[in-house]
Amino acid sequence: MRIIGIDPGTAIVGYGIADVENGECELVTSGSVQTDKNLPDSERLLEIQKDLSEIITKYKPDTASVEKLFFFKNQKTIISVAQSRGVILATLAQFGINIFEYTPLQIKLTITGYGKATKEDVADMVKRQIKYNHFPKLDDTADAIAMAVCHAKISGG
Amino acid sequence: MRIIGIDPGTAIVGYGIADVENGECELVTSGSVQTDKNLPDSERLLEIQKDLSEIITKYKPDTASVEKLFFFKNQKTIISVAQSRGVILATLAQFGINIFEYTPLQIKLTITGYGKATKEDVADMVKRQIKYNHFPKLDDTADAIAMAVCHAKISGG
Repeated sequence: MRIIGIDPGTAIVGYGIADVENGECELVTSGSVQTDKNLPDSERLLEIQKDLSEIITKYKPDTASVEKLFFFKNQKTIISVAQSRGVILATLAQFGINIFEYTPLQIKLTITGYGKATKEDVADMVKRQIKYNHFPKLDDTADAIAMAVCHAKISGG
Repeated sequence: MRIIGIDPGTAIVGYGIADVENGECELVTSGSVQTDKNLPDSERLLEIQKDLSEIITKYKPDTASVEKLFFFKNQKTIISVAQSRGVILATLAQFGINIFEYTPLQIKLTITGYGKATKEDVADMVKRQIKYNHFPKLDDTADAIAMAVCHAKISGG
């Protein structure tokens, strides 16, 4: 199974692609789609669609793990993050990728066993649960890798 | 100028296409993209992307008028409506269509001159401001036509 974990946003969409085999999880690549804040929303969303399509075409994940949104958690940015998420979901569907969605709480619990874990706690535990050569520093990319690892663990991979 | 007015949603995306020339506004067509509530969000969003692309390819609007969302107005449905809106904006950008966005208040004021106008008030006034053979009954489609008429008036068409 090849999983793409995705952390949606308008300015930055983090992604992490992992292979899961015989209970081992290995990071294939990770990075982020970044869009220009001076462009209108529509152009930024189109950029996300195009860049994500290229990443999918190149790495051919069969499964996606995408963060679920809650309006009480993301009040300020909810509209723009949800717009980005809409484009991401439609793009994944276009490529016939199986989509799984997890809440931030599910991710924390699955990875650290602790619902109040910090971002750092999660990142530390993710590093112990995946093989990698290079681990990204950008929060959004690390979060996306956590999404992939979360699905790998839940699906028993 | 050919304007497509769009009322975003997950279950129903209303659209109304109008030609504006010499200060006259004429309805070309109107309708709605409706998606199956039993399908996952990603499939519904992909359906919206595909159907809207077909409508644009067929009617070739050069300008779009899309409703702006507000967090406090749409709390319950904000995430799903914003996801739909993201897909709509990216699709419009893909076809190089000029996008204008109006708030519900701007639409009411522009069409009726009255910020507390009801949906019925707006629909009644829209009917006096556009030539048509058939006016749709579905609220979402009528709202989309109001979006097109709003932009026609604001742009001085």
